[in-house]
Amino acid sequence: MSTQNPVVRRPLDKLLDPKSVAIIGASDNHARIGGRPLYYLLNGSFEGAVYPVNANRETVQGVKAYKSILDVPGPVDAVVIAVPAEVVVQTVEDCATKGVGAAVIFSSGFAEQDERGAAWQAQLTEISNRTGIRLLGPNCLGTFNAKTGWLATFTTSVEQYPVQPGPIAIASQSGAFGSHLYTVAAKRGIRCTYWVTTGNESDVELSECIAYYAQSDEVKVIAVYAEGVRNGPGLRDALALAYKNNKPVIFQKVGRSGAGAEAAASHTASLAGSDAVYEALFRQYGVFRVDSIEELLDIALACQAGAMPKGNKIGLMTISGGAGVQMADTAEACGLDVSPMPEDQQKYLKELIPFAGVRNPVDITAQALNDLSLIKKFMESMLDEGGYDAVVAFFTVVAGSKMLSEKLIETLRDIRIKYADVPMILSIVAPEDIVRNYEAEGYTILEDPARAVRAAAALIHFGTAFERGLGTPPPALPSNAQRAPEGIVGEAEARNILASAGIPMAGTRLATTKEEAVAAWKSIGGPTAMKIVSPEILHKTEIGGVKLGVDGAEAVADAFEAIMAAGKQHHPSANLQGVIVSEMVSGGVLGVINDPVFGPAVMFGLGGVFVEVLGDVTFRLAPFGLDEAHRMINEIKGIKMLYGARGAAPADIDALADALVKLSVFADANADRFSSIDINPFIVKEKGAVAVDALIVPVGQETGH
Amino acid sequence: MSTQNPVVRRPLDKLLDPKSVAIIGASDNHARIGGRPLYYLLNGSFEGAVYPVNANRETVQGVKAYKSILDVPGPVDAVVIAVPAEVVVQTVEDCATKGVGAAVIFSSGFAEQDERGAAWQAQLTEISNRTGIRLLGPNCLGTFNAKTGWLATFTTSVEQYPVQPGPIAIASQSGAFGSHLYTVAAKRGIRCTYWVTTGNESDVELSECIAYYAQSDEVKVIAVYAEGVRNGPGLRDALALAYKNNKPVIFQKVGRSGAGAEAAASHTASLAGSDAVYEALFRQYGVFRVDSIEELLDIALACQAGAMPKGNKIGLMTISGGAGVQMADTAEACGLDVSPMPEDQQKYLKELIPFAGVRNPVDITAQALNDLSLIKKFMESMLDEGGYDAVVAFFTVVAGSKMLSEKLIETLRDIRIKYADVPMILSIVAPEDIVRNYEAEGYTILEDPARAVRAAAALIHFGTAFERGLGTPPPALPSNAQRAPEGIVGEAEARNILASAGIPMAGTRLATTKEEAVAAWKSIGGPTAMKIVSPEILHKTEIGGVKLGVDGAEAVADAFEAIMAAGKQHHPSANLQGVIVSEMVSGGVLGVINDPVFGPAVMFGLGGVFVEVLGDVTFRLAPFGLDEAHRMINEIKGIKMLYGARGAAPADIDALADALVKLSVFADANADRFSSIDINPFIVKEKGAVAVDALIVPVGQETGH
Repeated sequence: MSTQNPVVRRPLDKLLDPKSVAIIGASDNHARIGGRPLYYLLNGSFEGAVYPVNANRETVQGVKAYKSILDVPGPVDAVVIAVPAEVVVQTVEDCATKGVGAAVIFSSGFAEQDERGAAWQAQLTEISNRTGIRLLGPNCLGTFNAKTGWLATFTTSVEQYPVQPGPIAIASQSGAFGSHLYTVAAKRGIRCTYWVTTGNESDVELSECIAYYAQSDEVKVIAVYAEGVRNGPGLRDALALAYKNNKPVIFQKVGRSGAGAEAAASHTASLAGSDAVYEALFRQYGVFRVDSIEELLDIALACQAGAMPKGNKIGLMTISGGAGVQMADTAEACGLDVSPMPEDQQKYLKELIPFAGVRNPVDITAQALNDLSLIKKFMESMLDEGGYDAVVAFFTVVAGSKMLSEKLIETLRDIRIKYADVPMILSIVAPEDIVRNYEAEGYTILEDPARAVRAAAALIHFGTAFERGLGTPPPALPSNAQRAPEGIVGEAEARNILASAGIPMAGTRLATTKEEAVAAWKSIGGPTAMKIVSPEILHKTEIGGVKLGVDGAEAVADAFEAIMAAGKQHHPSANLQGVIVSEMVSGGVLGVINDPVFGPAVMFGLGGVFVEVLGDVTFRLAPFGLDEAHRMINEIKGIKMLYGARGAAPADIDALADALVKLSVFADANADRFSSIDINPFIVKEKGAVAVDALIVPVGQETGH
Repeated sequence: MSTQNPVVRRPLDKLLDPKSVAIIGASDNHARIGGRPLYYLLNGSFEGAVYPVNANRETVQGVKAYKSILDVPGPVDAVVIAVPAEVVVQTVEDCATKGVGAAVIFSSGFAEQDERGAAWQAQLTEISNRTGIRLLGPNCLGTFNAKTGWLATFTTSVEQYPVQPGPIAIASQSGAFGSHLYTVAAKRGIRCTYWVTTGNESDVELSECIAYYAQSDEVKVIAVYAEGVRNGPGLRDALALAYKNNKPVIFQKVGRSGAGAEAAASHTASLAGSDAVYEALFRQYGVFRVDSIEELLDIALACQAGAMPKGNKIGLMTISGGAGVQMADTAEACGLDVSPMPEDQQKYLKELIPFAGVRNPVDITAQALNDLSLIKKFMESMLDEGGYDAVVAFFTVVAGSKMLSEKLIETLRDIRIKYADVPMILSIVAPEDIVRNYEAEGYTILEDPARAVRAAAALIHFGTAFERGLGTPPPALPSNAQRAPEGIVGEAEARNILASAGIPMAGTRLATTKEEAVAAWKSIGGPTAMKIVSPEILHKTEIGGVKLGVDGAEAVADAFEAIMAAGKQHHPSANLQGVIVSEMVSGGVLGVINDPVFGPAVMFGLGGVFVEVLGDVTFRLAPFGLDEAHRMINEIKGIKMLYGARGAAPADIDALADALVKLSVFADANADRFSSIDINPFIVKEKGAVAVDALIVPVGQETGH
């Protein structure tokens, strides 16, 4: 699949917004797969022409049927195909001949089943590429457009919960999961204009749906379920587009764990990128990653209300001190700022209700529910003077009654309108109709106070992510930068290449005799690291080609000879250039992995136990600029080390960020030439930073020192 | 409040299971605080005598009223007090005179309000201690016993959701929160026999309720909400009792975060122990800590079904591959074992449904729902041959219809009965009545698949925690063990004291001259740590009394003189005993903090960045035995270091565990004599382990080196 122009290869309009449609394999029985979409189209709001195609019947569900798509008189924008796998290829070929724009293929029995099916699926891809017809599936549950009534699906969920246009759009690879997602979303009053399940992705893939949503005026919020995409750059471009258009993307990417990834592999056989690289991608484009459907829907519901604050300051109101404490815990765990109310306001509020909690959480006590004007005064104080970016309030069953809910809505209406850009999420236990009343006024209702706070945190995540922008762009590669090598090169050459790309390199001494090694040790004035230099020897440690902490003239001379002897013994024909003698230092680790799906991802971690024992590393897709590099550095758990923990001087983090940026630019420019790059250690000093060691592993070679 | 015999000070039977009751401040108006409990008692299932007490009326709610509790003719086990704060003390005194066993005090205006209120509350405590009357509250929402209809509460939640006896018991400090908890629990079909809110805890405190529940045959599951307890040993004993009786305790302890703790302090002014110590306590007694009400209720619901497996192996069944992947992710995140099905069974299942996923998750595909006998065969294979300890199945809306749910229940009935001890949690979207049908058959229904897996993990947590037992008991303190010092002592004495308690101590050399220091350096043969010895000097580093990594005769001699000079300069009158010269080593850190609520808690962490930068430490309440020490050690994130990461030899973890146990025994025996103990570093070698340095800070002194 080409990754050129990955976002808008060919438009999806005919697939998602057709004016005339046909059902191939249309059934008279509403309950059958070929009967349901026809039934939905004929009995729903779809206004375009609908043609049943069935070789054996004159009419289907009371409508004239055609023997073949080729017999249909008018133009056909899109078809649904519900015929056995064996005849799908010919059917699609006929559709292309007819000039059909898009086909939704329900049929299963393709790549998910056996080799014969995989071959058929390859033929479908070929027809699509050759003729331009867009194909959804095969082996998918279809799609719908709630605005036009285009219900090209056989899920019964749309009977149980009729589709309603709204700000949410769903894209799911899995059909059953997508159907479940729609059902629970609709049950909770979440309104989806678009819903697509991509199934086997013979042609249309998830990232194209995301890009379509990102450019649709109807869509305000994008919810995605994926097990792993095939086209990494396409997903990156689609997410960048959504970011640019300030559309929040809520992404459930499963297969995070070992067991999950194994299950995903056996389920889809998709070439999934490394989970760490997805994580990097999501961080770069402000995507909110969720681990459960429920969390996805909580956030979609909160986004549906429309406000995404640009600040991090949360105001908590409660009628139970206990719930207030819990909300404060959750807010802090989400990284929110639970700043107290201004002192003068605390005094003012204490005068209104003497037993109230007036810091933040603000505990209005049960008294405020007997006199709602008090709630109004408290809320005004929190918004006018407290300056909170979002408010979460715990009102439990008390505000769930019909009478009190109506009064409360009325009392707060002016404030709700005045602060339309401040999300107000209420933790209320109420029947569905009362929940809908609150929602109509712009509140989000989540029964559980912890979930309410987490949803507010997600809104703040989006608002602040859009506010900050993508930051400084990556610089150009220096014009004199060398390319990554085609074959294996020694450390010295790797160092030269990376230095030409602007990455600072420590001066080291190449010793070709033991006398030169001792001289190098003397000039360093302390323990040294000694390492063999030879382009042919990759696994240096394993053969005894590395000695660390060598100190003293005699020890250095002995080490030189031992290292050279080990080189000769294990690689008799290798070109032994000598031994590098360098300062013994510890520091960070920079690296690049070249992900098969997404391309180069730059890694950063602190050295020693941080990487090796704790796995404390973070990634970003290359290339990126300085702002992103700083965000990356600040994600490390051991970050305190760089700011001068344990009595050390603060490190030059700007120099580190600069090196990460330059490494990302180099990696991007050489994406087709290497499989990994490893810079270990990378020393971040009080002033400046340098790489001590470097390894570039060409494509097709495995990593190793 | 005494901590002697903290669990069963005086029984709670009269409070929680009275046979005759009075309402003091009884109101004719059902809606008033003094009217509601009377109304509930008169119109509910309570069978004992009910006496309204009201000085101004002949009858209340149609029942003869008494002027005073002293006028009531028969015996009175318990009363509800709903009178103004001003008259509560006299009312309670009258009750004690009358011989009333317990009083539930709704009235507010005590310690939570002002000093006058605090004084009244102290009088209540005094009356209770003197006369033996048990007092719940003041400032509480009361209690109920669903079995007897004793509804001593004014929450309207019990009108909306009438109480139903069942296996759950709730104890909450907060009234409003407890009321919310009951409401959402009842709404979800969770049946509670007991519910207590403790309010200001003038007498009855949370841990006594837990202990009562732990000993009640009716109660199978204990759900607790707390902001912080006053009586740490009481809570420990209550949790130990629950553990001993295999009663799962689900505990929401709020105030975990800084913001939360601040809110809790301003809300309750309770003397809350350190959150890390609560965490230690919960781990020791198999308590499951939750961060949200929803999680608490999910687990309570799952526990209500009754099965708590002894093994960790989870079987996942799904009709959507995607949901299967997500469940596998969640299961692995919860530490569960997602082992695959046996090979022969995989083959057998593939024959039944060729497109099925047959490892684990087992994806039965939509086909199995058309032929339910297939689900039965799959489930049998998973239980008979797969040997899973718990099963979670994702059936979504499909199994939520009336027809299919009845068929599914019927199909699986034999298996459900045969494997009654295997929890089966189904992720199903269904109306409430259908959910109840499933529950009646022993299934737990949780709509969200991630929550279903997490609930299964909680059941496994309890089952395995009860199965493992509390492990080896702590040993006795050696008979020749010295006591902790009363005043400040030098390091040498601290080392001797701890050595007498069985904690291994490294040999070090006390040098009183620079020549002795150099001799010590020579015998060590490498870099040394040098530290001043003086009982009067606690903050050694700050005054220049510590030098690390000193190597070479001249350097050691210079360091000796510099250290002694620094000691003299900063503490002219101090007794300078010399300088300790020891090997430069890094290792673990052992310590003890003496928590004001819970007493001594032993800390363990790895040295260096693990403790200082990452805060990677864990605690246990003293004393404990070897099994607990091993569990503690294995919680450390950097545990790989001890098993030989980064080329190091594996450390003698048994020796480390032994030292932790002995430190815990010493700390317990000296709980009244020290504020903290610090052993840093504690070196764990390939064989054996030794403490190099030791500090014991007496009560009333702050910690410092």
